[in-house]
Formats: sequence, structure tokens, C-alpha cells
Amino acid sequence: VKAIGVFDSGIGGLTVVKELARQLPYEDIVYLGDTARVPYGTKSESTIVRFTLENILFLLRQDVKFIVIACNTASSIALELVKKYFQIPIIGVIKPGAKQAVRVTRNKRVGVIGTAATIRTAAYESQIRRLDPSIKVTSCACPLFVPLVEEGQRNQKIIFDAASQYLKPLKKARVDTLILGCTHYPLLKPVIKKVMGRDIILVDSALQVASEVRAALAAEGILNVKRPLKNVKRIFNVTDEPRTFLALAERFLGYTVNKVKKVDYV
Amino acid sequence: VKAIGVFDSGIGGLTVVKELARQLPYEDIVYLGDTARVPYGTKSESTIVRFTLENILFLLRQDVKFIVIACNTASSIALELVKKYFQIPIIGVIKPGAKQAVRVTRNKRVGVIGTAATIRTAAYESQIRRLDPSIKVTSCACPLFVPLVEEGQRNQKIIFDAASQYLKPLKKARVDTLILGCTHYPLLKPVIKKVMGRDIILVDSALQVASEVRAALAAEGILNVKRPLKNVKRIFNVTDEPRTFLALAERFLGYTVNKVKKVDYV
Repeated sequence: VKAIGVFDSGIGGLTVVKELARQLPYEDIVYLGDTARVPYGTKSESTIVRFTLENILFLLRQDVKFIVIACNTASSIALELVKKYFQIPIIGVIKPGAKQAVRVTRNKRVGVIGTAATIRTAAYESQIRRLDPSIKVTSCACPLFVPLVEEGQRNQKIIFDAASQYLKPLKKARVDTLILGCTHYPLLKPVIKKVMGRDIILVDSALQVASEVRAALAAEGILNVKRPLKNVKRIFNVTDEPRTFLALAERFLGYTVNKVKKVDYV
Repeated sequence: VKAIGVFDSGIGGLTVVKELARQLPYEDIVYLGDTARVPYGTKSESTIVRFTLENILFLLRQDVKFIVIACNTASSIALELVKKYFQIPIIGVIKPGAKQAVRVTRNKRVGVIGTAATIRTAAYESQIRRLDPSIKVTSCACPLFVPLVEEGQRNQKIIFDAASQYLKPLKKARVDTLILGCTHYPLLKPVIKKVMGRDIILVDSALQVASEVRAALAAEGILNVKRPLKNVKRIFNVTDEPRTFLALAERFLGYTVNKVKKVDYV
């Protein structure tokens, strides 16, 4: 049985794994978190492309049948390129997130938050415009959100201050829908709701990504249906020591991970 | 003429370069900022050791005569090990910083702030205790300071909130001297003074590091004295694209860098 390969710059991609496991319970999943080189969002395009290529090569050697780039930064910068290079189907998180936002917005004002690199590419904006050019998109980089989440959300006051400041242009633009364009951000949902108002619709790509993976596997006739759940494998790899990953994984995944393998592939 | 090699996880080590250039004006300097893998302070010991070894090998191939580990995290975790491996003299920033703090404290209460990895090693504490066991040391990790500085200090309120929270135990311990145990922190001096009070003595290792390098080179008879300044070289290398480095370098260095080389050594 071939697995679905998922990679992220670090731990945030586990929010996608969680949703894949829910919607595709019979699929093996191999995860790679590039925790030694995290974050990607502050780095340049050529470096993000290089890291993405290396991650894909690693997953290919784990004998996967499908690859999910669970990192928004890598998706927005490298997906179009790597899709041309490799035979294996590769999906990112931008298009699914954009699609979902277009579907749920009522006032046609959509906000996007992400890392500096993701926002620089305007990838969400161009996907949304392609789907519905009448939608007004407002984008903001939130560079401190990733370190705030990774630090474990102990600084509620600082998180609230940062969110208030970053989200100001989005409030002003009166968006009714906000794309959480970074896999870390779902963990900040409560504070983002507090700042944006309780009516804001928060879009996190994981749900839509998983349903697109499901459709793609079904279309190619390689979807696993009904097999003993005890045979289903979830394999977690990281490039730094697993300690921090193990400590944080539960918050993203909803359950405790016992075994994480450290890989040295670069 | 052989150069002095200096490396840091990113851009912060330029504060050391600045001081080296001031105290050793006739020395060539080769700098390496591992901007593709920054930060180090959130990563594990084995990964930091690996990065340090790779950085040293890179500098050795640039034909240097002396190596300065300008990164507190790498110094505290990897220095003792790498000193055993290589013939070239290697100096870190911990011991010089500790020495200076011991010299200037009057109430024998010293504070240390640094990354999570640096504080975990208690490297400053053990150096200070070795020099003067009667000194009481209080240490605090400040994980958000690096992203706050790299983001360009645009969030004065957030910076102040973070500093107030992190420095609380140090105020309580009534330290009169505070070691800035990370090369990024000198850029936060104004806010740290505001929180700690204007009488606080802030120790940044750069000054003492440069004077120890000078003494070491002189002792070995390899100190360059008096040669045309136009022949003196300052070479800057980074592992990510130079854009961000170029944009921030002036704030650390005090002058504009025109040429930065991107190297791919891993």
C-alpha cells in the first residue's frame, strides 16, 4: 500500500494530517516536518524552492503515491514549478483555501493573512480573482504569529496586541471571510475571532485540501477503502530532534504521537 | 593575508564584526550568516552542533587564521566540542561576556537573557560561577526577541509588552548587570533600559570578544599592523538570498554593505 506524503516547514502541517486522517481513514500517511530549517516564511524564493525540492525527493523515496504541500509558503512559491518537474500528483493548500473562501463569502470581501513570503507572492489573491474577479481581497503579513504559536501561546496579551495590529486593515476593509494562510494560524482562532468579531468566517485550508485529495485519489482509482485500521500507518519524520515536535504535536493533531523519526536528508 | 572568520546563525553577528573592525582595523574579515537555517535558538543541540561544524568547514575553506563564533546559541552548545576537533583557534561569545559582567557588577547580581537553547545550557551561569562563585545569576529565555528584531522593530508596543513580561524575574532579582546573551539583543537596548531602569548595565559581548581576539592574535604573532586600509577586505556570505541581509545589515553594522555573496555549502 502506497502512502500519502505530506510535508511542512515544521509542525503546522499536522492540521492537514488531522483532516486527511478524518476524511481518508484507510490511507497511510508519511509526514515530513523540516524542523531544522523552519521557518520558511521569512526566507527567499530560491531557498524555499530548494527546500521544497529536497522535501519532495525525501517523500518520493518513502514510496508515496500522492504529495500534499501542507505549507502555505512552499505552496505559494514552489508548487507551480515542482508540478512540472515530477510525475507524482502534487497538491498545495492555496487553491483549496481560495476555493472555499469564494464559496463562503457573502459580502465579497475576503481577507488573507500569512507569512511575509506567502503574502509577497499574492498567490491567494490571484487564485480568488481567477474564480471570481468581483471579490475584493485584502492581504496582510503577520510575521510574529508563527513564533507566537511555537512559543506555546503563553503570552496572551502579546498575542492579542499583535493580532489587533495586524488585523486592523482587514477590519477596515470589512471582510466577512478570512483565510488563515499559514498552517500555524488555526491555533490562533480564538484571538482572531476576538479581534475580528464573532461573525467572521475563518477559512483554514485543511478541510478542503483533504476532500480534494480524496477526490483525486478516487478519480485515479488509488483510494484505499475499508481495510483493518490496525494496518493503517502514520509515520512522522522531522529534520531536527523530535523533542519539540512531540511536545507540540498533540495541539495540532488532537492526539499524542509516540514515535517520530529524525531524518538527515540534506 | 589570512582573514578572521566570523559566523552567526543570521545577521546578529554583525555587531561583533563592527567591533572587530573598530579594534582590529587592519584585519581581513570573512563573515558567514546562515540565513537559510536561522534561527538556531529554537532548535536542538545535535542540530546546532551539525550547523556549527558545517559553518566552520566553510570558513576553513576561505583560508582563515582564527574563527569567532558570534552566535550565542552555537557558542554555548558547540564551542567546547569544536575546539577539540579543529587546529585553528576558535573563540565564542559566552566567556568574554561572562568575564565582562563579573567585572562590572557592583551588587553581585547578574541577569542573563538569551534564546531558549542558550538559556537551557546555563553556559553563562557556569562561566560566571567559575570566575566568582559569590555572584547570583538569574537567567531568562526571551524567544520572541529575535523575531521582533528581525521584523524590524515596527511593533513598539508589542516589543515593550514582551520585554516587560520576560524581564520581570530579573527586576525582581534586582540585578544591576544584564548580559545580552544573543547578538540580536543590542538592537533592543532602548526598550530593555526602559523596562529595567536607566541604571542597569547592559553587557554585550562584542567589545570584549574583539579585545580577546586582538590579544590572541598578538600572542601568536599573527596580528596585522599598519597596512593600506584600501587593501583590507570585509567579505560577507549568507546561505539565503542576500536581500533581507542587505536591508538589515546597516542597523547592525553602522554602515551599508554593498556586496553579499550567497553560498550553497550544504
